[in-house]
Amino acid sequence: VVDPGDVRVDAGKLHALGVRALTTVGVTEEHARLTADVLLASDLRGVESHGFAHLADFYVGRIRNGLVKAVPDVRIVHETPTTGVVDGDGGLGFVAGRTATRLAIDKAAVAGIGMVSTRNSTHFGPGFFYAMEALPQDMLGISMTTGGNIVVPPGGVGRTYGSNVIAFAAPTRGVPFVLDMATSVVAGGKFEIANRRGKTVPEGWGETAQGLPIVDDPSPYLQRGAIRPLGGTPEFGAWKGFGLALMSDILCGVLSGGGASTTLTSPGACHFVGAIRIDAFIPKEEFLDGMDAMIGKLKASPRQPGAPPLTYAGEPEAEKEADYRANGVPFHPATIEALRVMCDEIGIALDLV
Amino acid sequence: VVDPGDVRVDAGKLHALGVRALTTVGVTEEHARLTADVLLASDLRGVESHGFAHLADFYVGRIRNGLVKAVPDVRIVHETPTTGVVDGDGGLGFVAGRTATRLAIDKAAVAGIGMVSTRNSTHFGPGFFYAMEALPQDMLGISMTTGGNIVVPPGGVGRTYGSNVIAFAAPTRGVPFVLDMATSVVAGGKFEIANRRGKTVPEGWGETAQGLPIVDDPSPYLQRGAIRPLGGTPEFGAWKGFGLALMSDILCGVLSGGGASTTLTSPGACHFVGAIRIDAFIPKEEFLDGMDAMIGKLKASPRQPGAPPLTYAGEPEAEKEADYRANGVPFHPATIEALRVMCDEIGIALDLV
Repeated sequence: VVDPGDVRVDAGKLHALGVRALTTVGVTEEHARLTADVLLASDLRGVESHGFAHLADFYVGRIRNGLVKAVPDVRIVHETPTTGVVDGDGGLGFVAGRTATRLAIDKAAVAGIGMVSTRNSTHFGPGFFYAMEALPQDMLGISMTTGGNIVVPPGGVGRTYGSNVIAFAAPTRGVPFVLDMATSVVAGGKFEIANRRGKTVPEGWGETAQGLPIVDDPSPYLQRGAIRPLGGTPEFGAWKGFGLALMSDILCGVLSGGGASTTLTSPGACHFVGAIRIDAFIPKEEFLDGMDAMIGKLKASPRQPGAPPLTYAGEPEAEKEADYRANGVPFHPATIEALRVMCDEIGIALDLV
Repeated sequence: VVDPGDVRVDAGKLHALGVRALTTVGVTEEHARLTADVLLASDLRGVESHGFAHLADFYVGRIRNGLVKAVPDVRIVHETPTTGVVDGDGGLGFVAGRTATRLAIDKAAVAGIGMVSTRNSTHFGPGFFYAMEALPQDMLGISMTTGGNIVVPPGGVGRTYGSNVIAFAAPTRGVPFVLDMATSVVAGGKFEIANRRGKTVPEGWGETAQGLPIVDDPSPYLQRGAIRPLGGTPEFGAWKGFGLALMSDILCGVLSGGGASTTLTSPGACHFVGAIRIDAFIPKEEFLDGMDAMIGKLKASPRQPGAPPLTYAGEPEAEKEADYRANGVPFHPATIEALRVMCDEIGIALDLV
C-alpha cells in the first residue's frame, strides 16, 4: 500500500540521478549505470530498503569517506569452465556482483551450470536482481550474500552473524518465481521503519544487546539489539534459519576466500551467484508446463475465509513494478529530502519532479 | 537423550537385517545394501524418523503391496558434462537417490560442478546422506527432495504442498557442517511422536484439517491436519518457508519433469543432488582455514546464562553417531516389536540382540 503522503517519482529520472550522483563522486559512467540499474529495480519492486533510500549513506557517502573505492579493479582471480572467483577490490558491490553474474551466465551458456563466488565486495543491494539476470537466458538463477552482523544464534547474546540472504529465480509463462529472503526472522530495516513511524514490533523478532526479548518498542534494536534467525526460537525452527545463514556464509564467504559474515568488518561483503541452464536438464517447454501445473494446483487450493488469493514469491513485487513503472515510484518525502541534501553536498541538480 | 527404556542394537546387525528383509521381498543384494546404508546412517545420527523405524511400512511394506517396484530400471534419461536427469522407475528412492549422487559427484570430479534432478522416485530417507556423500571427495554437497503433502501455505486450509527438504554439507577440519531441514516448522513425525507419548505440541506448529490452530493436543494433525511453513505466520517469515519449499519443488520436481509435491501422489517423490568441487574455487586448505575462522568466531560468541555451547548443524548428530556406533543404536521397544512382526510376516530371523 502506497502512503498517501508519498511522492511519485519517474523511474527514468531516478536512474539518471543515480548515474549523475555516482559519476560526480568519481565512479565511472559504466559502473554508475550498472549500479543505478539495481537501485532502480529494487525500488520498482518495492524493496525500498535496497534502493535509492540508501544512495546517500551506503553508496555515495561511503565512496566520499573512503570506505568504498570509487574505481575498483574488479578481477576474476580464478576460473574453470564452470566456476569462478571474483575479487571486488573493495568497490561498489553492484560492480562485483554484476561481474560475477555475467561470468556465471556465460559459463552456464556453454557448460550448463556456472557458479561464481565473490570476495572483497560491499553491499550489492537486493539479491533478487542477480538471480533474475538468469531468466532471459532460460536459466534458473541463484544469488546469495553475506549481510550485516545483526543476528543472534539460538542461545546467544547480541549481534553475532550476518542477516545473510538467499535468492532464487525461475521462469514461468507468467510472472517469474523470485524468492529473495534474509535468513533472519525479518530484515533489520523492519525495526528501523517501525521506529521511524512510531509503531510497535511483535515479541519474537529480536533481542536487546543484553539478550532480553524486544517487546513492542523497536528502539532497543537500534542500540545494538539483534534479530533472531528465521524460525525465531529452537521450538519453531531457529536452528534451520541459523543453518541456512551458515550455508550462505560458506558459499559466499568461505568458498571465495573472503571470509564469512562473522569475520568480515563493515562494509565488507561476499556474494555467490549461480546460473543453471534449464535445457541442460529438460526442454524449456516441459519445464514451463511443470511450473504451470505446480502454480495451478497452488492457486486452486482452499483459502481461509477472507484470505486474499495465494501468491508465490515474485508476484507481489511484479504487481508493484507494473504500477510504479506506469505511475512513478513512491517515496516518503523524507527520502526525497535526504537525496536533495546529498545533491547539494556534491553540487548536482536533484531534478526528480 | 536416550530413553532409559530403549534397547541398544548393534549397527552391523541392523544393517544385516535391512539387507535380509529387502532381499527377501525381491530387492537385489546391491540395492538392498545401498538402502540399508542410508537407513543405518539415519539411525546412527539420531534421525529416527528416516531409519529402521519405517523399514516395515515405508519400504518392505510398499514393495509387498506393489506401491514400490522391487526391481526398478533406474536410468539416466538425459545428461551433459555437468547435469543429469535420473528416472527412478518407481523403485526405492534410495536406489535412485544414490545413482543420482554418484552421477553428480563423477561429473563434479571432472567439470567442477555436477547437478542431477531425479523423477519417478519414492521416499529416499534423510537428505543429509546424499549431501554428505560429497565430503570425502572434497566437495560441497547439496540434496533436496519433495516431501509428503502435509504443509499449508499462508492463508490456506489443509494439506496443500510438500514438507520439502533442503540439505547441504561442507567439510571442516573437525565435524562437517551438515544442514538437513524440512521447510515446514517441524517434520510431521513430531506430531506423531507427541501423540504416541501423550505429550502436547505448542500452538503455532500446525492447523486442523478445517484450518483452525492446533493447540496442545497433537491428534488433530493425524486427522489430516497440516503443518505450517517454516516461519509459522506471515509476521514471522512464513512466506520464506513457503518460498524455500517451492525452490526445492522446482529443482526436484519441475526440473526433472517429474512434478512438484503439489502434483505428485504418494509414494511418488522427486529429488535434486549437487556436488561442487572446492578446488574449482579455492585450494582446499584455504577453504578449511575459512571454515575454522567462521566456526571459531561462532564458538567464542557470548551465550545466555545456562545455555549450552553453540553448535552448528551436524555437530549434535556427529555426537550421537559416535555414541551409537560404540554402544548400539537406541530403539523404543515398540519399534523392535514392529520389526519382529515384519520378520515373522516375511519369514526371516530378527537377530538384533
